[in-house]
Amino acid sequence: MDSIKVGLLGLGVVGGGTWKVLRRNAQEIARRAGQTIEVTRIAVRDVEKARALVGSAIQVDADPFGLVRDPSIDIVVELMGGDTLARELVLEAIAQGKHVVTANKALLAKHGTEIFAAASAKGVVVAFEAAVAGGIPIIKAIREGLTANRIEWVAGIINGTTNFILSEMRSRGLPFATVLAEAQKLGYAEADPTFDIEGVDAAHKLTLLASLAFGIPVQFDRAYIEGISKLSADDIKLAERLGYRIKLLGITKRRAEGVELRVHPALVPAKSMLANVEGAMNAVLVRGDAVGQTLYYGKGAGEEPTASAVVADLVDVTRLLTADPEHRVPHLAFQPDAMSDIPILSIEDVITSYYLRLTVADQPGVLADIARVFANSGISIGSMIQQPSDLDASADLVFLTHEAVERDVNAAIAQIEALPFVRSSVTRLRMESLS
Amino acid sequence: MDSIKVGLLGLGVVGGGTWKVLRRNAQEIARRAGQTIEVTRIAVRDVEKARALVGSAIQVDADPFGLVRDPSIDIVVELMGGDTLARELVLEAIAQGKHVVTANKALLAKHGTEIFAAASAKGVVVAFEAAVAGGIPIIKAIREGLTANRIEWVAGIINGTTNFILSEMRSRGLPFATVLAEAQKLGYAEADPTFDIEGVDAAHKLTLLASLAFGIPVQFDRAYIEGISKLSADDIKLAERLGYRIKLLGITKRRAEGVELRVHPALVPAKSMLANVEGAMNAVLVRGDAVGQTLYYGKGAGEEPTASAVVADLVDVTRLLTADPEHRVPHLAFQPDAMSDIPILSIEDVITSYYLRLTVADQPGVLADIARVFANSGISIGSMIQQPSDLDASADLVFLTHEAVERDVNAAIAQIEALPFVRSSVTRLRMESLS
Repeated sequence: MDSIKVGLLGLGVVGGGTWKVLRRNAQEIARRAGQTIEVTRIAVRDVEKARALVGSAIQVDADPFGLVRDPSIDIVVELMGGDTLARELVLEAIAQGKHVVTANKALLAKHGTEIFAAASAKGVVVAFEAAVAGGIPIIKAIREGLTANRIEWVAGIINGTTNFILSEMRSRGLPFATVLAEAQKLGYAEADPTFDIEGVDAAHKLTLLASLAFGIPVQFDRAYIEGISKLSADDIKLAERLGYRIKLLGITKRRAEGVELRVHPALVPAKSMLANVEGAMNAVLVRGDAVGQTLYYGKGAGEEPTASAVVADLVDVTRLLTADPEHRVPHLAFQPDAMSDIPILSIEDVITSYYLRLTVADQPGVLADIARVFANSGISIGSMIQQPSDLDASADLVFLTHEAVERDVNAAIAQIEALPFVRSSVTRLRMESLS
Repeated sequence: MDSIKVGLLGLGVVGGGTWKVLRRNAQEIARRAGQTIEVTRIAVRDVEKARALVGSAIQVDADPFGLVRDPSIDIVVELMGGDTLARELVLEAIAQGKHVVTANKALLAKHGTEIFAAASAKGVVVAFEAAVAGGIPIIKAIREGLTANRIEWVAGIINGTTNFILSEMRSRGLPFATVLAEAQKLGYAEADPTFDIEGVDAAHKLTLLASLAFGIPVQFDRAYIEGISKLSADDIKLAERLGYRIKLLGITKRRAEGVELRVHPALVPAKSMLANVEGAMNAVLVRGDAVGQTLYYGKGAGEEPTASAVVADLVDVTRLLTADPEHRVPHLAFQPDAMSDIPILSIEDVITSYYLRLTVADQPGVLADIARVFANSGISIGSMIQQPSDLDASADLVFLTHEAVERDVNAAIAQIEALPFVRSSVTRLRMESLS
């Protein structure tokens, strides 16, 4: 049986998981691949720590460039993270004619165009199933499983930390800061949680999903990003009362005039499958014109779930070693010469429904005046609730709009906030029907 | 751009869908595949009807053997169904060196061993994504997306007709016969619904999933099959009261001593993702040792969802045309020489939990006697409810057991039914924790 030699850059959580899975399931994997897949060299910063895990039978050092230039290595697995040194190493591995497997979404969301072009020019593959939604084979599903379809939109819960926080906030009625502190204790959130809670990590992944779905270049800098740190427990409670749950979604949608690319908290119908994705789980909903909606659900992070995707990519790449490069699955699902230059739309051009909450003086004429602003802006209201406010002689109003252009909604909000009886700014959340 | 020539055997629901999708999305598909995929010949019984759909530009006749022997055809798509003529045609297409795409689960569940061996010998591919769960790329997920894993079990809602019926029975409290008649009117069930409601269709699909998950030959004749026609609305109601929903599941599980392969109604926790798969939708839950649980959800039948899978297979096959046959993804996920001969277990050897309902005389000592039978059989009870029976001076009892061997449960049931105060036979349903 042939043996494929793999070099690992990094032996942290995912690297360690990859090492363990490749060893524990070596036989099961070889039964499928028809070849054995063997880690023969590892480059890490902390050589001693790595030795403790892998023993002394294989080469471990702190020389990543030595690894990517090592002629005995067939495939380089980049699991070190970051987008500076990782970029250089991946490009050097490609230049050396090596295939690359990576879990690095930040790297590909920012430098994917450069990296995929270099790989295509060299006739090598850069595989990245582990970069989105951990062990869920979502990239394979979109890139190979749904090739018959004109994909209309993708909506996903693609960050486990924020989904864990939102699940806890809802089920226990706790404020954001309390749950975040707990998540940090439990290891669900990092010491500096900014990347997760502000939506940056989700936007990296969404950028890749949009390219795969629509055949557009990666354009992370064009993504609209809004996190969950400003969400109040009140809004989560009110949403629930209205039949919705709030999730941090990555949404990308193709319209005639462009592609929506946005990460933000959104109300989704409580009975929808996405609303019922709880805790640190991930799920991606894809709508294609032929297949309708399909959903992919599982663990989006963690040692072995992510390693599962890394190893699946390794098996895929071993199958490609003898294949004609021209007939491989393209990196971004579409042939490089068939990419679309359809623009990414500004968030102001997004069309969706809205949840709008504000506090007003409890006096006659208030509703009429607000309703007139909506009507003049062409915004149609689907439902509305009013309840006593914590403020004296005041009422809290919540409006759910029908679909509207965000620019118009923003203009209406500005007018409403200027009305004399309005006693708060307007809290605005987007709503997705997912239909 | 190269053009791949496809011959269609059959132009019914799925064949018509395939034709439509290939035409409507020709450009999108070519952008992905780097080649155009063109139907150039169709064989059907009703030539006139087919002409009405496809026009006169391509060859339509009633000569399927002519089609599979036509040297201009690259890929034969078998969408006629049945396992007699379809088998001959698929084998002849293979003998002619042609790749085959099929949606025919009955054919592969019964004759898969013969067909895949013939294909391997000829170096051609038989692709069958459309045979299981319609447009959901579940075969690709298991066969390529989860190659890192030792798969532990697969549990799926893989028949839309029965899931529609069960969803309606539950939500509207109606009996089976009423809902079946309605489903037939709506086109969700066929005039002769036996294959669906008795679980045969699900067992065909499960047989394929088991082979893909565990690397075992297709063994449809070893599957345990129990349908939903005997399910009562009462049991559905009681299950709900206990926090469960009843679904027709296909379950296959690897244990040290063999593989469980069974289709039957089962209670699943009401909060689980599978319990919330409603109407005619399908979903498959897969547990791998590295990835944990992943779920795949979507439309399991219908014109375009199934066509989505057929066309995805066509794109896959076009990519393989120039590849080295030895490095292709094996038909049943594992290399033919690495298949396992682990046996399929008898249903009597299955280990799961049970829901047991019976009517007893409402008198002292009843519970004690029944509990003694369970204890003597080594069966542990997790919970129990008692309610007044429709019968005079009687009570209905429901027991939920912990995990037990089915043989022991059957023996206990026989003893309980022989007790003097027991006034009904014991209704036995299996329960799956899906954990």
